Amino acid sequence: MQRFHLIGILGKPDDPEVADTISRLVKHLERSGREVVLDRDVVEIPDGASLARLPRGELAERADLVIVVGGDGTLLNAARSLADSDVPILGVNRGRLGFLVDVSPANFSEIDTVLAGEYIEDTRMLLNAEIRTESAVASRGAALNDVVLHKWNTARMIDFDIYVDGELLNSHRSDGLIICTPTGSTAYAMSGGGPIIHPDVDGIALVPICPHTLSIRPLVISAESTVEISVDPGAHEQIRVSCDGQEDLGMVNGGRIVISKRAHKIVLVHPPQYSYFEILRAKLRWGDTNLG
Amino acid sequence: MQRFHLIGILGKPDDPEVADTISRLVKHLERSGREVVLDRDVVEIPDGASLARLPRGELAERADLVIVVGGDGTLLNAARSLADSDVPILGVNRGRLGFLVDVSPANFSEIDTVLAGEYIEDTRMLLNAEIRTESAVASRGAALNDVVLHKWNTARMIDFDIYVDGELLNSHRSDGLIICTPTGSTAYAMSGGGPIIHPDVDGIALVPICPHTLSIRPLVISAESTVEISVDPGAHEQIRVSCDGQEDLGMVNGGRIVISKRAHKIVLVHPPQYSYFEILRAKLRWGDTNLG
Amino acid sequence: MQRFHLIGILGKPDDPEVADTISRLVKHLERSGREVVLDRDVVEIPDGASLARLPRGELAERADLVIVVGGDGTLLNAARSLADSDVPILGVNRGRLGFLVDVSPANFSEIDTVLAGEYIEDTRMLLNAEIRTESAVASRGAALNDVVLHKWNTARMIDFDIYVDGELLNSHRSDGLIICTPTGSTAYAMSGGGPIIHPDVDGIALVPICPHTLSIRPLVISAESTVEISVDPGAHEQIRVSCDGQEDLGMVNGGRIVISKRAHKIVLVHPPQYSYFEILRAKLRWGDTNLG
Amino acid sequence: MQRFHLIGILGKPDDPEVADTISRLVKHLERSGREVVLDRDVVEIPDGASLARLPRGELAERADLVIVVGGDGTLLNAARSLADSDVPILGVNRGRLGFLVDVSPANFSEIDTVLAGEYIEDTRMLLNAEIRTESAVASRGAALNDVVLHKWNTARMIDFDIYVDGELLNSHRSDGLIICTPTGSTAYAMSGGGPIIHPDVDGIALVPICPHTLSIRPLVISAESTVEISVDPGAHEQIRVSCDGQEDLGMVNGGRIVISKRAHKIVLVHPPQYSYFEILRAKLRWGDTNLG
Repeated sequence: MQRFHLIGILGKPDDPEVADTISRLVKHLERSGREVVLDRDVVEIPDGASLARLPRGELAERADLVIVVGGDGTLLNAARSLADSDVPILGVNRGRLGFLVDVSPANFSEIDTVLAGEYIEDTRMLLNAEIRTESAVASRGAALNDVVLHKWNTARMIDFDIYVDGELLNSHRSDGLIICTPTGSTAYAMSGGGPIIHPDVDGIALVPICPHTLSIRPLVISAESTVEISVDPGAHEQIRVSCDGQEDLGMVNGGRIVISKRAHKIVLVHPPQYSYFEILRAKLRWGDTNLG
Repeated sequence: MQRFHLIGILGKPDDPEVADTISRLVKHLERSGREVVLDRDVVEIPDGASLARLPRGELAERADLVIVVGGDGTLLNAARSLADSDVPILGVNRGRLGFLVDVSPANFSEIDTVLAGEYIEDTRMLLNAEIRTESAVASRGAALNDVVLHKWNTARMIDFDIYVDGELLNSHRSDGLIICTPTGSTAYAMSGGGPIIHPDVDGIALVPICPHTLSIRPLVISAESTVEISVDPGAHEQIRVSCDGQEDLGMVNGGRIVISKRAHKIVLVHPPQYSYFEILRAKLRWGDTNLG
Repeated sequence: MQRFHLIGILGKPDDPEVADTISRLVKHLERSGREVVLDRDVVEIPDGASLARLPRGELAERADLVIVVGGDGTLLNAARSLADSDVPILGVNRGRLGFLVDVSPANFSEIDTVLAGEYIEDTRMLLNAEIRTESAVASRGAALNDVVLHKWNTARMIDFDIYVDGELLNSHRSDGLIICTPTGSTAYAMSGGGPIIHPDVDGIALVPICPHTLSIRPLVISAESTVEISVDPGAHEQIRVSCDGQEDLGMVNGGRIVISKRAHKIVLVHPPQYSYFEILRAKLRWGDTNLG
Repeated sequence: MQRFHLIGILGKPDDPEVADTISRLVKHLERSGREVVLDRDVVEIPDGASLARLPRGELAERADLVIVVGGDGTLLNAARSLADSDVPILGVNRGRLGFLVDVSPANFSEIDTVLAGEYIEDTRMLLNAEIRTESAVASRGAALNDVVLHKWNTARMIDFDIYVDGELLNSHRSDGLIICTPTGSTAYAMSGGGPIIHPDVDGIALVPICPHTLSIRPLVISAESTVEISVDPGAHEQIRVSCDGQEDLGMVNGGRIVISKRAHKIVLVHPPQYSYFEILRAKLRWGDTNLG
């Protein structure tokens, strides 16, 4: 019996290049006797009329493996919506290596190897974020990369207090704060000067954006900790909270932002030759010599 | 004949502490035979009913010296509005040293020394910023610290092209860009990782905010250069331009942002013992030992 | 029965201020019925002639608690030499708060509370570092803060390869590399731009010193990982390895540097009101407002 | 009459690739009627026996143009030794673009354009560095990139005081200090976090190496300023001063390091299409997108 028999395919909507890759991929999978279903939101693909298109939840439930075709952004979106299921995810890029979409679309030999049962399972934590008032949860979201508190509709810095496990870390004046997973440490957090965190580290990074106090530094805390951010009453209009830069949780008057590790992790599947460090070297061009 | 006979006073509006300092200062100046006029927007002061209150332009024209009482923000505001006049400016703080308001309100001996003719003249450049369309100037402003291009109403990075003297510097993806004077190099630009630039340097710094490309660094160019920033059509709604974090130039569709040195400089007046480096050491706490 | 009956005291040698504190401390402890022994290398103290002075190993074996009087450097030294024992360590400073010596010498009420059994146990990992050749271990050391590979006797950058768990991380050209524990993240590593790592995180940071490639960033890996650094044959004369900046492991031709977590941890003892974040805020002056 | 008739050639010693380029270049120049002389230290070149080899000083005096073949390091070396002459310098690389050796060796059309009189003159400042005692100058050197004060033979930080135009800037504890020209701002100083400074800026940057105080930042001062660094008596053995990372000025007990702009500038010659910003973009790979 095949470990991965029913393959769900998910892709960047509205991208003809993705449509082409998916079309080739479907044929390749069907030739090898796999069954294929598409995510309902996937781009229109040539000869794809006969394929079942499922809502995300059903896709997660039925598929043995979900293949995501697109960029890291597409996989982030997929990961959040598949976060409660146990289906493993394999990321195929559009020709440009991503941190998360590490499989090339050029030929499907890497995918064949995975389907044949030779693969690396790579579990990644997600964050839960909630905007809470005294009495209720105003909004909530999940993030594979990061939860970002950023200023909104203002040219001025914002003020907020950060608590870790109920204890004050700091009263903060800055343009915002990035709370990221190890996965997100190579995304937006890096622009803010945050460290790279290997996915094996059970940690969360707090990376300030343009902090007013010069001695503030990125901080890595245990992923078991709960981060809580409180904002002055009335200041909520100058603040927004987003997940993975894709989902807006808004902000409410008197709201607190509570961030913690999601109990359930997702599983990324990679070909056997996958190397986290090799991707770092390639993406960050560590082989280059820049200086004079 | 006194070099500084007619003293204009300008202060942070709505600040009782400032009112108190101004009240004491007025009496002190009048006792020494000076004439005092107030800026029209100055906070209500005790026993101040008999004092003339002038519009900013008239104040600049008539006064031999303008004393600004408040924080650096108050002086930034004053400097922009006095930028076209030749009246020198002296900054008095509210007890906490500022980069620009370096004179203590505790007693007025430093001010007496200045009034007696012993002082340092410290000229500072300002920037002009204009939002230009093909046919017109949509808005313009001046800045003593910085002109900031920042993202607005979006959680995503913004894209723009930077030209220096008509030549492409870079296509930029980031949260924004700070273009600062030497004066502004110790303000917001420092939060973004910019260098300190001594006021004697005829330079302007371009400091990116959270740039997407890791090898981008702050850049110091000649203050004789013109910086021009172009934004994709339609992207203007995600961008705003501000001067000194106080004045909003907005942004228009198809607009270009043009920044250059203002021909006219302002003159700050300091007591003879003033030291730029001493203020750096005090404000940035360079005497401290932080690490373990 | 007292949990802490026999108290060993260790202190910075050759420091009269430390001698005074120890002298007061000994009397205080003896008055409360404790037995006191001194480390053999402790500074000469007034009225201390009758006290037993023990070699470090014997001190560790016999004492129920070791009190270290001095700065963080003194505690680093003590921690390395007590690393194989289970004796808890309490750090008393000389009036200036340290990251590790957090108890004030002013009065001994904090110590009394600890001795009365109210305290926080704070376990901290150490690193093992070895210089290995094909056939032998040329030298080894332990570090509570950091193992540092730095250039020696040269103005040029050095080249080396970093492996993590046998896999190449990067070929590196720089002034050196800091491998630090969470404890060491607030020491030298911070000067190199490293993040703060909370002691609860089971991680190690690799912080490059002036890397030649601009996109290299500090990296946090799992503390279960082994770091191995290989240096070109012949280049060993331009390289040295040190532990906590105090112990020099030297370097040999063809040597590899192998760094891993030490199986045994040390236990720091703090008064109940101890707060890691409060010390961060105090030491790094996070309450300050620096900018203009 | 040709502006550039007698061409001096200087190149990286002991590099066969350089020998090949020079050999082709000599033939090319002779075919166009130019006269060629070689620097005495140039690598042995095929068919080069008949060419005059001159000491550096004579080369500078006689040549109308010096072509340097090699990397940026070769040009730095040449620039220091030609700093007192007025001969312009053209840099040819070995296939990899440098900041200073910007002309490709592939064909010599760029050189022909320059020789035909179409070129950009690009003047670059140098620094003078002296180690002074009370009574004498112990050593001196010139630098096109940077003068670096770095620790030597020690794992510990070094302490020194920095004065600018006789006024104390700061008492400094760090691994060292880079004092760089605009040209040097894209070299070692960048590894230390310094800004890029355009060659048109009449400024010098002071970039600390791993400073102990977290709020210390790179500082740009006027190039008219004199920087003086004093070191504690006895600490000279832990300190060295180097120019461009190539020339060691040593250090003496009680010595002060004095750095100022060299009166004489060098002139680099570039083809007409030369663009400083284009080289920045290419060398620093600003077109890349690194993050996830």
